[in-house]
Amino acid sequence: MSAPDDTPPSNLLEALREFVEERDWAQFHSPENLAKSISIESAELLECFQWNSDFDAERVAGELADVLTYCHLLADQLGVDPAQIVLDKLAVTRAKYPVDKAYGRSDKYDEL
Amino acid sequence: MSAPDDTPPSNLLEALREFVEERDWAQFHSPENLAKSISIESAELLECFQWNSDFDAERVAGELADVLTYCHLLADQLGVDPAQIVLDKLAVTRAKYPVDKAYGRSDKYDEL
Amino acid sequence: MSAPDDTPPSNLLEALREFVEERDWAQFHSPENLAKSISIESAELLECFQWNSDFDAERVAGELADVLTYCHLLADQLGVDPAQIVLDKLAVTRAKYPVDKAYGRSDKYDEL
Amino acid sequence: MSAPDDTPPSNLLEALREFVEERDWAQFHSPENLAKSISIESAELLECFQWNSDFDAERVAGELADVLTYCHLLADQLGVDPAQIVLDKLAVTRAKYPVDKAYGRSDKYDEL
Repeated sequence: MSAPDDTPPSNLLEALREFVEERDWAQFHSPENLAKSISIESAELLECFQWNSDFDAERVAGELADVLTYCHLLADQLGVDPAQIVLDKLAVTRAKYPVDKAYGRSDKYDEL
Repeated sequence: MSAPDDTPPSNLLEALREFVEERDWAQFHSPENLAKSISIESAELLECFQWNSDFDAERVAGELADVLTYCHLLADQLGVDPAQIVLDKLAVTRAKYPVDKAYGRSDKYDEL
Repeated sequence: MSAPDDTPPSNLLEALREFVEERDWAQFHSPENLAKSISIESAELLECFQWNSDFDAERVAGELADVLTYCHLLADQLGVDPAQIVLDKLAVTRAKYPVDKAYGRSDKYDEL
Repeated sequence: MSAPDDTPPSNLLEALREFVEERDWAQFHSPENLAKSISIESAELLECFQWNSDFDAERVAGELADVLTYCHLLADQLGVDPAQIVLDKLAVTRAKYPVDKAYGRSDKYDEL
């Protein structure tokens, strides 16, 4: 069996599952707890920008990785494919923000 | 050219970039603004569990998709591969939470 | 009995308790649920600044009020006085950020 | 002049302003930065409940104090009274959640 660090990106889910299983941590990973964890890690990401817009790219990437990790674990609990739900939502968002109305504007769809 | 909705998951980044470019939204997507957006969407995800642990799986998947969307956009701004940074961080976390100490425990690494 | 709107600020806690009791909502207000609610409302406050630093002061005040409302409800659940815990923490923070080291700097105390 | 630690709760705002002024920190306290800080501290509060509903009351009070501190600083920047905006919002919320409809229910007002 290859070491976890050798796992290529295409086996991301497998690597995450193995990590969790080895530690018997699935018991903590209810969807609710994972949702809390995503919020908590998102705030650590935000902390990189607390007082100004400058940032340490490596630190930001590390915090983003934590958010993504819990996102993947939650997707796995829900039985959905992370890439697919993003694409599905993109189709919805395309409809809510048609190019001719939304071009160059950051307004919410109900204010366009 | 194929329609965006036909884009297979392997072209997720391409679909997101096209979506942003069509709307001229890259101007709003500074790393700081994306970090704020990730926190904001994470809270909408958390709202699915505000008063209890029950949840509507479809609603949760939809909110998770929003978090993931901004995560992918931020990774793109940073020039990093989302799957790779998760794997890189996993290696770090494995070292901080060795199986023999962390098994079945939700404590922080400095309290193990 | 006077209408709630006539309640002076000194009776804030009383007004909040009455509001909750009238609706039989104390059952939902576990410390955990209130903590989730504070995060959720904080993100709605942050949303006022999602794409830039400009803001609508009235909207910001309204979102801030929601954060504060849940903070007061949590303090009540914990049996602590909101103003007193801020002052207590201020004493701790004063020690962590001595004026001569922290003057004009936004660094964390362990980086001063 | 009395030492800051002797300041009674009624002078909370004065104590906070003195703390900020002594460190020349007002320059960092734009409404946007304070909103980010409220989200960041809210997540630290949420972290007290990350894996279960049990909690350390003292730790929770300490994190709640941090949220409240930034809320008071933001209210001061906005020129509003924290207690008053809570009471003002309470009047709005009373109207959105009439007792006869909202009694014993955690649903959002548009689902009552």
